[in-house]
Amino acid sequence: MSNDASTANEARDSFRHFLAIPTRWKDNDIYGHVNNVVYYSYFDTAIMNYLMVEAQIDVLTGAVLPFTVESKCRYYQSLSFPEVVDAGLRVARLGNSSVRYEIGLFRQQQDQPAAAGYFVDVFVDRQTQKPVSMPQHVRSALERLVSQDDEAVP
Amino acid sequence: MSNDASTANEARDSFRHFLAIPTRWKDNDIYGHVNNVVYYSYFDTAIMNYLMVEAQIDVLTGAVLPFTVESKCRYYQSLSFPEVVDAGLRVARLGNSSVRYEIGLFRQQQDQPAAAGYFVDVFVDRQTQKPVSMPQHVRSALERLVSQDDEAVP
Amino acid sequence: MSNDASTANEARDSFRHFLAIPTRWKDNDIYGHVNNVVYYSYFDTAIMNYLMVEAQIDVLTGAVLPFTVESKCRYYQSLSFPEVVDAGLRVARLGNSSVRYEIGLFRQQQDQPAAAGYFVDVFVDRQTQKPVSMPQHVRSALERLVSQDDEAVP
Amino acid sequence: MSNDASTANEARDSFRHFLAIPTRWKDNDIYGHVNNVVYYSYFDTAIMNYLMVEAQIDVLTGAVLPFTVESKCRYYQSLSFPEVVDAGLRVARLGNSSVRYEIGLFRQQQDQPAAAGYFVDVFVDRQTQKPVSMPQHVRSALERLVSQDDEAVP
Repeated sequence: MSNDASTANEARDSFRHFLAIPTRWKDNDIYGHVNNVVYYSYFDTAIMNYLMVEAQIDVLTGAVLPFTVESKCRYYQSLSFPEVVDAGLRVARLGNSSVRYEIGLFRQQQDQPAAAGYFVDVFVDRQTQKPVSMPQHVRSALERLVSQDDEAVP
Repeated sequence: MSNDASTANEARDSFRHFLAIPTRWKDNDIYGHVNNVVYYSYFDTAIMNYLMVEAQIDVLTGAVLPFTVESKCRYYQSLSFPEVVDAGLRVARLGNSSVRYEIGLFRQQQDQPAAAGYFVDVFVDRQTQKPVSMPQHVRSALERLVSQDDEAVP
Repeated sequence: MSNDASTANEARDSFRHFLAIPTRWKDNDIYGHVNNVVYYSYFDTAIMNYLMVEAQIDVLTGAVLPFTVESKCRYYQSLSFPEVVDAGLRVARLGNSSVRYEIGLFRQQQDQPAAAGYFVDVFVDRQTQKPVSMPQHVRSALERLVSQDDEAVP
Repeated sequence: MSNDASTANEARDSFRHFLAIPTRWKDNDIYGHVNNVVYYSYFDTAIMNYLMVEAQIDVLTGAVLPFTVESKCRYYQSLSFPEVVDAGLRVARLGNSSVRYEIGLFRQQQDQPAAAGYFVDVFVDRQTQKPVSMPQHVRSALERLVSQDDEAVP
């Protein structure tokens, strides 16, 4: 049911930055697996951690904020508390005001992801909420994540 | 940034079943808007509420369970606590063991959605976790949601 | 294990304001019950809904904010998705800058709570984060919730 | 507002087991601080991680399950994404079927907690949901956490 995923390179080494995300007890649903919604929280955390730690964006008072306009996830394998997930991050498209992040979630020691997906974010002005060019220090940080890959997470 | 959404009919009256979902305080993020991850919890809740209340699936002991294999959301407008969101649900594709749900999230009295997306679920056997035909009472309930529309949420 | 709860009046009619909170699919944990953490989100939502809708506090730009300094919950019965919970709210102690909210969570048509607890909040200045007197319109709204009861949720 | 906390020893070295819990983006609320509800998820995660990893309880099929009957938290300092929190765990009271866990949440390199609280759990039979003696391997694991301290988190 996810055959077309094979057209994209989602292997661990295709990602440029990693964050270890320990699962939490409450992530597990009634089936004993991490609920599908929570995967997006892992994506979100990987992205915002990079933006805050590496790109030094100031989420409380900065003039420019990232807004998410689209997101997607394909689920290949279950995850379960208490395992630790490695979130791999790369940038597939870097525009003037927008960016497409691709994320793979990897179980320990696995090369193929348990899930993969993307977030499309647009940087907006805090006051007007209109799209604006991303600040240069953000662009520089995101350029370091740009994938060499031609094929994106579908 | 979401121009191609216009090719799909996402208006309120294109959905077949509605659930009112009040936002919660914790849904709001640092910007005072419902965090993008939480939209998927609204999707999830609309689907599972329908399956449990209308299709009478037994999530604790039933032999067949729904697993989510893919999900997506496009964000058009912000939502904020304490507003109540109307989640519209329809079925765009009903297979033997799989189903594509489409969901629109509507602010009160609005005809166009604040966000729209889909979940692709596969019914699996609880023991083997392999895809199986969905039970007839589930299929019957899902058939009532099948959209007349030719165009799906992109 | 909750014998001393009997010394407090936690019956439905001892609360002064009610909010219906539908459970969400993701609230359920591995045992098919609402996870114990989520009860606090119901408490939080009941309080903030009252503050925003009835007391008209402005959480985004208001000069005075509520900070929680202590919270507690006693769990008597399980809750499960998709049931709707009635959150009853009352004020047990109303100080100059602080307030003790008591909350009971009721299943439909039940007179005794499935869980009960409290939040102690202190109003602080947004800039200095020091305690300040709560604004008069907030105090007036909270006075309407003051319980006649002598005994508090333990 | 938390003066009586000084009667309990909540310093880092009074806890017997530690788990590093990275905050997540979604933990932050509108004020840019970890929402008060989320602290309980850190407590919950510290406890269940210990039970699953150290005490080897089987949450999916084991005959005996822990149910939470009471929980409490006192908030001393704000936490914020992306910081990593150290959750300290100890056992203050170990009964036949029940246990009182005390938890302190510590910012990196800090000796006094940002928050502290407790969970009272009762072990119940999976079928009858009645309290039962905890299994010996669980008791042994919990005995290793018993605090020497006379004073409990209030």
